[in-house]
Amino acid sequence: MSPKVTENHKEERKRSILEAAKKIFIKKGYDAFVMQDVIDAVDLSRGGVYSYFSSKEDLFLSILEDSNNTYSKEIKDMAKHPSIWNSLVKDFENYKSASDTEDLFGAVQIEYFLINRLLPEKKIYMKERYQFAIEHLTNLFDEGVKKGEFNPKYPLDTIARYFITFNDGINIATIFLNKKDLNFNAQIDIFLSHLASLLGVIKE
Amino acid sequence: MSPKVTENHKEERKRSILEAAKKIFIKKGYDAFVMQDVIDAVDLSRGGVYSYFSSKEDLFLSILEDSNNTYSKEIKDMAKHPSIWNSLVKDFENYKSASDTEDLFGAVQIEYFLINRLLPEKKIYMKERYQFAIEHLTNLFDEGVKKGEFNPKYPLDTIARYFITFNDGINIATIFLNKKDLNFNAQIDIFLSHLASLLGVIKE
Repeated sequence: MSPKVTENHKEERKRSILEAAKKIFIKKGYDAFVMQDVIDAVDLSRGGVYSYFSSKEDLFLSILEDSNNTYSKEIKDMAKHPSIWNSLVKDFENYKSASDTEDLFGAVQIEYFLINRLLPEKKIYMKERYQFAIEHLTNLFDEGVKKGEFNPKYPLDTIARYFITFNDGINIATIFLNKKDLNFNAQIDIFLSHLASLLGVIKE
Repeated sequence: MSPKVTENHKEERKRSILEAAKKIFIKKGYDAFVMQDVIDAVDLSRGGVYSYFSSKEDLFLSILEDSNNTYSKEIKDMAKHPSIWNSLVKDFENYKSASDTEDLFGAVQIEYFLINRLLPEKKIYMKERYQFAIEHLTNLFDEGVKKGEFNPKYPLDTIARYFITFNDGINIATIFLNKKDLNFNAQIDIFLSHLASLLGVIKE
């Protein structure tokens, strides 16, 4: 077997472990998850799994890293869109039509950070993640300004913070309640109308 | 000792246990809290504490019940205020000047519900709490309409849901980040200005 094939094979195995782990995290939550669950779910020995991931936390943080990369790519793709505003609206429309249980990994993330909230090093990590999101959104909005799409009423990083606050609020609610109880779609519409005003979306 | 004094004494003891428990919940979180912590913190025997509260969960739910009652009273007091809008603004101004660590029991609540999110009976309880908050806010807004203070743009219960979404979002952020990082005051100002528009606050 050539080394290249071996590397691909390793990457595939790693990916299959991560995918299995993500499903189990969503099903059981962070606290109840044990490494044995993953070992049972994949076609690998105990030692095989541990050669890729040293702990539950290592697995969790790798999944988080993946979702950071996806987020980063999505925002950058949006910035290239002919109309940034339309692509933002489309994103929220997808959010409306997603099923109630589609993104429950968000619940696992909040659980992880809550459990660890009293540890200073996790606070630093949380702050870095927040800054990462703020920067990406600010850059996206700034791209809209440069293209003449937006004429913002507030500093862009303030709008980005406000954007994240609404998203966090609606995400946490969907963990405990279903979209119907939340009147989810009406909330999204109100937010989008407000966001258009904050960004000063210039109608064509 | 008359039965009346005994009742008062019992009530005082119960209160002192609840206050000690709340501090420990905030300091350690829900998961790490053990009944022994409370027994160590109050001037009562193990049996004494257990005669009032049967478990950690019993203690936690009693604190939650207390905070529900406080919330209910606050909203009803606001409704009697000569200007409901001014009393709402004042509430948010107090929120701005509160220290970063003032209401960390909110973190314990979210932790409790997250840990229990996969249990159907807790979902029902969570939904009841949400309905309770929506009803109180809707009644408050409705009082403002009756008094001619508000001319709302959306159904009042939709505005109430949106109000709670923003509050949840900003609360969860303050668990992990400090107010400065959040640009907290600017976010409150943006929200209040939006809320005034949603409620159609009629200027005198």
